[in-house]
Amino acid sequence: MTERSVIHSTFVIERTYDASPALVFAAFADPAAHDRWFVKNQDWPIAEYRHDFRVGGQEAGRFSPDGTTMVHNETLYQDIVPDRRIIFATTMAIGDARLSASLAVIELEPAGAGTRFVYTEHAAFLDGRDNPAGREAGCRALFDSLEAELRRGT
Amino acid sequence: MTERSVIHSTFVIERTYDASPALVFAAFADPAAHDRWFVKNQDWPIAEYRHDFRVGGQEAGRFSPDGTTMVHNETLYQDIVPDRRIIFATTMAIGDARLSASLAVIELEPAGAGTRFVYTEHAAFLDGRDNPAGREAGCRALFDSLEAELRRGT
Repeated sequence: MTERSVIHSTFVIERTYDASPALVFAAFADPAAHDRWFVKNQDWPIAEYRHDFRVGGQEAGRFSPDGTTMVHNETLYQDIVPDRRIIFATTMAIGDARLSASLAVIELEPAGAGTRFVYTEHAAFLDGRDNPAGREAGCRALFDSLEAELRRGT
Repeated sequence: MTERSVIHSTFVIERTYDASPALVFAAFADPAAHDRWFVKNQDWPIAEYRHDFRVGGQEAGRFSPDGTTMVHNETLYQDIVPDRRIIFATTMAIGDARLSASLAVIELEPAGAGTRFVYTEHAAFLDGRDNPAGREAGCRALFDSLEAELRRGT
């Protein structure tokens, strides 16, 4: 029988971006922008990615960090307040084996001409298949990629 | 403009039930049992409740704690391991205004002839419309109701 375990973790990442809340929000809401900085930010083979940015909308992607194993992520948007807040529930899985389930909350606030960006992720890492440190490092890399996207756009 | 705020909270409730993990699991998996202890445990008017207990399945209910305001809850099952684990993402809303978004993890372990039940909820309470203390009290009442259901069944 497979050993079952859950590691519960919460982490917060804060950034200040030199772009308005409307532009930061658009980097999530606009499929082309989201594709550039989020989906294609690494050189991983992407099998597919489906955008559906609306409350109740579900996104799904398959990608391969090592070029062999396919990881599926599935996201449900739970709350969207334009230019202010995005909340989503995500699972990562390999086949039928879930690696993690998480609740992610993005809060945007004006900070001068820019935006204070606060990302809070509550995650359950399952059966030793993923870990909090790796997840947080992955998110920091993504938000660097978001910063590069915002620099291109402004 | 509406004031926007997020209160992040994590709480854990542990119980030991005098019923096997298979019976505790069945109280979630079986629509009739779930209806008895979860949906109809309070004397609230229930407008509807839809069961869909499978990974990727979505449940939705509408109920009225005060007999006037309709609260909608929507749940997505993210991970299910029979007799061991249930993970789901839930939102509560009044109309288009979300009260909360949460990630709930239930872990079941054999404890003698019974079950150690551990419920962990990570929740974001939105715009001052709900609060951690009320949610935790509501969950404790539900797990009392679950205990009564298990006593009826065993």
